[in-house]
Amino acid sequence: MTDQDLEWSIRARIDGKTKPPGSLGRVEDLAARIALLQRSSAPRMETCELTIFAADHGIAAEGVSAYPQEVTRQMLGSFLDGGAASTVFAATFGVPVRVVDAGIAGDPPLDPRLLSRRIGPGTADFLQEPAMTRSQLRHALDLGEVLGAASVTDAVAYGEMGIANTSSAALLAHRLTGLDLGILTGRGTGLDDDGLARKRAVLAAASARVPGDLDTKGALAQFGGFEIAMMAGAMIGAAGKRRLILVDGFIASTAALVAESLSPECREAMVFAHVSAEAGHAPLLGHMRAEPLLSLGMRLGEGTGALMSWPLVRAATAMFNEMASFDDAGVSGRA
Amino acid sequence: MTDQDLEWSIRARIDGKTKPPGSLGRVEDLAARIALLQRSSAPRMETCELTIFAADHGIAAEGVSAYPQEVTRQMLGSFLDGGAASTVFAATFGVPVRVVDAGIAGDPPLDPRLLSRRIGPGTADFLQEPAMTRSQLRHALDLGEVLGAASVTDAVAYGEMGIANTSSAALLAHRLTGLDLGILTGRGTGLDDDGLARKRAVLAAASARVPGDLDTKGALAQFGGFEIAMMAGAMIGAAGKRRLILVDGFIASTAALVAESLSPECREAMVFAHVSAEAGHAPLLGHMRAEPLLSLGMRLGEGTGALMSWPLVRAATAMFNEMASFDDAGVSGRA
Repeated sequence: MTDQDLEWSIRARIDGKTKPPGSLGRVEDLAARIALLQRSSAPRMETCELTIFAADHGIAAEGVSAYPQEVTRQMLGSFLDGGAASTVFAATFGVPVRVVDAGIAGDPPLDPRLLSRRIGPGTADFLQEPAMTRSQLRHALDLGEVLGAASVTDAVAYGEMGIANTSSAALLAHRLTGLDLGILTGRGTGLDDDGLARKRAVLAAASARVPGDLDTKGALAQFGGFEIAMMAGAMIGAAGKRRLILVDGFIASTAALVAESLSPECREAMVFAHVSAEAGHAPLLGHMRAEPLLSLGMRLGEGTGALMSWPLVRAATAMFNEMASFDDAGVSGRA
Repeated sequence: MTDQDLEWSIRARIDGKTKPPGSLGRVEDLAARIALLQRSSAPRMETCELTIFAADHGIAAEGVSAYPQEVTRQMLGSFLDGGAASTVFAATFGVPVRVVDAGIAGDPPLDPRLLSRRIGPGTADFLQEPAMTRSQLRHALDLGEVLGAASVTDAVAYGEMGIANTSSAALLAHRLTGLDLGILTGRGTGLDDDGLARKRAVLAAASARVPGDLDTKGALAQFGGFEIAMMAGAMIGAAGKRRLILVDGFIASTAALVAESLSPECREAMVFAHVSAEAGHAPLLGHMRAEPLLSLGMRLGEGTGALMSWPLVRAATAMFNEMASFDDAGVSGRA
């Protein structure tokens, strides 16, 4: 069956359900996308896993975050202990969690529950020099791709943790989309006006350090983060296995932008879970023509937004598989 | 503890969680509201039940719906068999369902799984005469209140089914709020332009039949439906037990408007789950100063929107109860 025929048959099946056509709105679109992704008339959406990629950023030294860098390491412990927002949500929805050290600052953590994929002890300060070497970038992308390709769940939710990573995401998004750096730069964890002004100045200066066009990998090496590159790799790997990718907030959407740029067919696997309150997210989604499912004013990252979309994804798939048709149920059609 | 002190302590507890203050957006507000409703520092949000109230409407005879009246009865079977959208969503989320016959047209259905609370075989045609008698209205409200007060779940989701009930809801909302009848009147299950024009003309003529002010019960008797009145009663009963009420779409919001008007303290228990694509819902929510959680383009009723909010409600409560504080987790605060 061609993709076009398959899409027709999927849409006809949804329209035959006992409801006025279109009356489930975006839930119908979601179900159709899932069936298409899985090339299946009985799509499966039973299992999901959350992977949180953590890394540190040299740019934190420039005072671009409201929180100190050690919070990245401290939050790893909170994820592993299940006390963070995202891990509480995951437990509520029965979603297992794994935590990846993509390269936090300082010594390697010893906790055996952590998946160690360290590229280095944080990136370099990209105001001064490239955030990472080409070799580090290649490792981050490759390790991510292997993780994503090894996923065995129907859906994957990817979250991140890394003090100062909205700075990296804003600059990456700016260099890859051409959107104004100012509108992409927000308060992150909660900068005040002075802090935001400083962050804007630092990012403008960092961008000016590398004039001219940059390709995707060039921009990632200059301004990226280990967790962003690894997440982009994971998206490429997961999409190759036709897993549904639940895209979280601003940083995850920047990783999605990178993944789509490196491997355009990834996009078919992506569901944009929510629009964050972080200033740059809505314009970035607009540029990507991505329509987020939820708008709850969240701006925490960690995969919290991605997880919130998981029950909707399950319900949409159940609708497709289990809801009766007018014929099955003996219900009359339009008068 | 006064309500003010309780609210302060709830907000302080949420702000002490390991996240930047406010970074979970509306999820924080939801958690605070639930804790306040239950007057508890350990609110419980584990169980929910969906009750679908079904009834028929005499106004259907005036050609105001795209579907024939027998669909109300047919859909009851689909609810009981679990093949409807709302019952599929309910099963996905582990929410039990009960189906109430508040008065569908024709003979009483024989299915023993149905909860029979019949007020009559559908309302009268309110273009010609009052939809119901005062005695019928009293019974509908009272039976609903008893059902709501008997609920034993932490949350209640209320859905409805009744061909032509957007006509009843639009006219009720118009007479109770003063909002323009035209903006409250939508395509329901899918009227075309001619059908919509006809519906508008019928509703304008019906409204003109009863000039002057109407109080809430007067408007309900003139233009209401058995399922709307019974759902309003159920909301009053459930709110009295401090159950969280997940308010569905346009018709359920009209019932919520009625319930709040008859018993203002109900409002504290209500969460407006979503904004429907049915034209009148957004203006009605605006008038009620209700902020819906979700916007998914759904317009099916049956409790489908209410159910979609249930996982969010659970996650918000879990966040409140289980997420670690900065102190617990040894995480550093702002720099």
